[in-house]
Order: sequence, then structure tokens, then C-alpha cells
Amino acid sequence: MYIGIDLGGTNIAGGIVNEHGEILMQASIPTRATRPASQVVEDIIALIETFLSSEIGCDLTLNGIGIGIPGIADSDKGTVKICVNLDWRDVPFGSVIQERFNCPVHVENDATVAAVAEFLVGQKGKYENAVMLTLGTGIGGGVMMAGKMVSGSHGIASEIGHMIVGHNFYDCNCGRNGCLETFSSSTAIINYAKRLILESGEKSTLDVKNLTGKIIIEAAEAGDDVALRTFERMTDYLAKGLMNIVCMIDPEVILIGGGMSMAGDFLLNSLNEKYKSLKYYKMISAPRIEFAKLHNDAGIIGAAMLLKM
Amino acid sequence: MYIGIDLGGTNIAGGIVNEHGEILMQASIPTRATRPASQVVEDIIALIETFLSSEIGCDLTLNGIGIGIPGIADSDKGTVKICVNLDWRDVPFGSVIQERFNCPVHVENDATVAAVAEFLVGQKGKYENAVMLTLGTGIGGGVMMAGKMVSGSHGIASEIGHMIVGHNFYDCNCGRNGCLETFSSSTAIINYAKRLILESGEKSTLDVKNLTGKIIIEAAEAGDDVALRTFERMTDYLAKGLMNIVCMIDPEVILIGGGMSMAGDFLLNSLNEKYKSLKYYKMISAPRIEFAKLHNDAGIIGAAMLLKM
Repeated sequence: MYIGIDLGGTNIAGGIVNEHGEILMQASIPTRATRPASQVVEDIIALIETFLSSEIGCDLTLNGIGIGIPGIADSDKGTVKICVNLDWRDVPFGSVIQERFNCPVHVENDATVAAVAEFLVGQKGKYENAVMLTLGTGIGGGVMMAGKMVSGSHGIASEIGHMIVGHNFYDCNCGRNGCLETFSSSTAIINYAKRLILESGEKSTLDVKNLTGKIIIEAAEAGDDVALRTFERMTDYLAKGLMNIVCMIDPEVILIGGGMSMAGDFLLNSLNEKYKSLKYYKMISAPRIEFAKLHNDAGIIGAAMLLKM
Repeated sequence: MYIGIDLGGTNIAGGIVNEHGEILMQASIPTRATRPASQVVEDIIALIETFLSSEIGCDLTLNGIGIGIPGIADSDKGTVKICVNLDWRDVPFGSVIQERFNCPVHVENDATVAAVAEFLVGQKGKYENAVMLTLGTGIGGGVMMAGKMVSGSHGIASEIGHMIVGHNFYDCNCGRNGCLETFSSSTAIINYAKRLILESGEKSTLDVKNLTGKIIIEAAEAGDDVALRTFERMTDYLAKGLMNIVCMIDPEVILIGGGMSMAGDFLLNSLNEKYKSLKYYKMISAPRIEFAKLHNDAGIIGAAMLLKM
């Protein structure tokens, strides 16, 4: 068995996962992120001990522990280099847990972890070269080449949400301007719809006090003009971002997950049409765009599956 | 020994190359690109035969033939999928040469070939993960990961010049808008300087009838305002392009070659300053930006070295 831990800003979720990526038991505890890192690590150790002493866990052999973190990890050293949400810098995370449980421990960025879950379990390992984009409040990414996850020579690869694709009316959280996630995340479309309604005085059925990515996309599908223009702008830039992935590494497939993927065919059809029109060699086939299959618990499953990559 | 062939729109250059990437003999013939593909292939075969029967070649064992083409190759099949300049589509190029000489034949895109030469010979194989950009009339790219060149699942990877990084006042040759090479190639800066002088009526020491990338960069260094603004715009977008490479695959190093790299420190200093200001994790180190070391004959050397990748 493997133990997968999904360390988030709000909760620490974890589970016992078998070699097929099935969760046999899961549990979660609050992160209470303002505490010192050492206390959070202690809670993670306690959670792992709970799994090991449980009725399911006590009969199985522990093959390894994988941990997804909302930041940058040095996978070789098992160190958390930086976690903005948790205010962590250079925390020797993996080694502490490795010493405690005497088994292999892998620490990885949470978007990479979600991609591992999708590639190995959602897609049943059928791809060697694939990219996964997680469209939510931000845009996360996971890049796999030749069957290995790409974390980069300095641990800062796969940050696809920070690809610069144009000039925007507001800056990204990272301090720069033009990042893909400022055009095509749910935060981005909320900001743009608000701007159209409040600053440009456009008429809309949308209520600016109650906007989510889902509400805007549903209003776009229902024909609201502001929502539709917001949606078209989102998919315009997302298609550019996808084609930039292609012109760099040309994977077999690009998978789209995260909350916004729930928009279904309305999103996929728009995106595919724009993506195809952006092909720079019209006669040569390009990677397919598909939705991710795994929705729930990808953080736990992917963390556990890190040991199998 | 290896034979490397650099098939260009104007000339076919080739040479005998030893295992250290040194050219022992070289020759070139005109391509006469308007002829049918079969005649060009016949000329390449004749050129290879010249090498094999030469005083140097006749004593050595032929280990393989590598060919760089100005287009998209299917490396597995040795087929040229598309060559716009030569008007070739689906030419079974490698197999014809392989049957004739009964040795391994590799066919690859010419920017990939130039990168192979730089990685293996210019940099003496010290990198496993590296990207090379060739800044000339267009922008070519070569991506190496885990010691292997990345041509992609559909043969369209490493086309870094076609990464979309903004909106431009003219479209790219590929039919799209915003490609990096429309901002940062020598063609791009000629177009922009002309626009400033002719359309906006800006005063400049530049002569619009006699513009090259070199002339504009030299005028920028000498303090001409139009040339300087043109140069700053070029490096602004180039820095964004470099950082997009980082956020996707984060290589050890990004190497810059091609005619524009002759601008030396004036270019490298401007680029490095902007690149560093674009880092999205300020405290984590990022890939170094360096100039390529190999300038001449990279097309012949890299084609021969394809057999050693």
C-alpha cells in the first residue's frame, strides 16, 4: 500500500491507496496554516500513524508515502523550497517523514500530483507524453515526458498558468502582467465580467456581487452578452496557451481538469474550434484536447502514485 | 565517420564529420529548390558519393548519415512531412538514402540540428536539459530533455519562434498573430523600425532602405532613439519568451545563437535584466541565459551528430 497526503491551505487530506490507485481509507484534518511548519508536519505524521494503525492499514505493507504541497518542492532532497500560502521556506519536510517511517517519501507540487493521478489512474497510463491543465481559481499544470513528470532543473517547470500570452488590464499575483491564469481562470473571468459591468457600464443578467466561474459560463451558454464576451476572451487566450504548449513540446494529448472543466462541451467545443484555427501547420495533426477523467481525490491518489512514476 | 547534410533553400552543404564533431572535409552545391524533390535527392546522393570516394572518405567506415531540413520531419520514418521553402510534402527522403548507402539515416528539422551541434559539440555534452534559440530572420528552436532532442508526438515541437507572447501590428508568416518571431527576429525589428519611421514619422539616423538586424542594434547601441526603442521592444518580448520556456520545462540553460547573437553583451545584458525581472519565484534560481559557442557549420556538424544523440 501507499499513503498519499494532500497538503492544502485549508485542509490536510490523506488516504491509504492501493497499487491500482484506489483509495482504501481516507481522512482529513484542518491545516491551520498560520502555525509553525513543524506543528503541521507533526499533524501529518499523526495522520499517517492513524492510517498505519487502522484496521485496514495494520495488515498491509507500506511501500512509500507521497505528499502534494501547494508550492515548489526539491524532489531529490524532499525539501519544500517555497509555499506561499503556508508561508514556508526551505522546510526539510520529506526527510523528517522518511526518518520517522523508514520508507521512500516523495514530495511534489500539487498540480503535478493531480496530473500524476490523471495520467496513471484517470487515463490508465496510456500516455508517455502528456500535459494536464487544472482550470480553477488559478491555472495549474503538470507536464509528463517519456513517462516522467517534468519538475525542471530548478523545480519551477510545469507552471503553465504563468505563461505570458498577452497584456492584461490587471497584474498576476506573481507580480507580472499577462500570465495565462489572469485570462482564463475562474478568477480571471470574474474580474473581466465585473470590469465590463462596473467600469464600462454594460448591461447583463449577471449579479456582480455573486459571480463564480460556473455562473458566468452558464450565463454565457444562456446567451448573456457580457458573459459570452467574457467566455470568448477566456477561451481565446486558453487556446493560445494550449498552442504554446504544442509549439514547445507537442505532447500526445492535453487534458483539462479542475472546476471549470465542469462546463463540459460548451467549453470544449469553443476551445477546440479556436485551438484548431491556431494550428501553425494546418495539415499536420496536433495533440487532442480532452477533459480529465478523475475529479475527486486526485490529490490523495496522485500523491500516493508519485511512488509509482 | 559520419556524413552530415544541411539542406537549405539556397544551398545543400555537407561534410565528413568525425565522432568529435570535427569536419574533415566539406562541400556544397546549389539546391535549385524549384526542381522536383526526386532531383534534389539525387543531388544529395551524388554529394554523399563524392564524400565516400574522396581520399579522406574512402579509408573510413561510414557509421551513418544525418540530414537537416528546413521543415518538419517524421524522424521514425525518415520522411519529410512538410518543407514550405522547397514545396515538399510527404517525401520519403531518409528511406531512399538508407537503401542506397545501407547505413542508419536520420532526418531532422534544421533548428533541431543546429541545437544538436551546439549541445554536443559547442557545449561538449555538459547539459542534459537545455533549449537553444536561433535568432535570425526567423526564430528557430531546439529542446533537449534528459539528453534527447524533443521533436514531439506529431513532429511539431521546438517551434519556439511560434510561441504567442502578445498582439502585434502584423501577422506572422504562419498566418497567426503574436508569434515570438514577429517581435524578436531581425525581420521583426526591421518591420518595427520602418513603422516608427515611415508611419509615425519619427526622426532617426536609420536609412529605411538599408536596414538589417545588425544595423538597428548597432544604431541602438550608438543611442539612436528609434533603434533603441525597437531594440527594447525586441528584448522585452524575447525575455517573455524565455520565461515561458522556463515555466513550461525549466531547463538547465537557454542558449542563444544565430546572426543576432553577434550583438554580444549589449543584447545579453538587456535580455538578462528583463529576464530576471520576470522571474515568478524571485528567490529560486532560474536557467542561465548564454550565447551559443558554435557559429559556423552547425548545420553540417549537427546533422552528423544526430547519429550520436
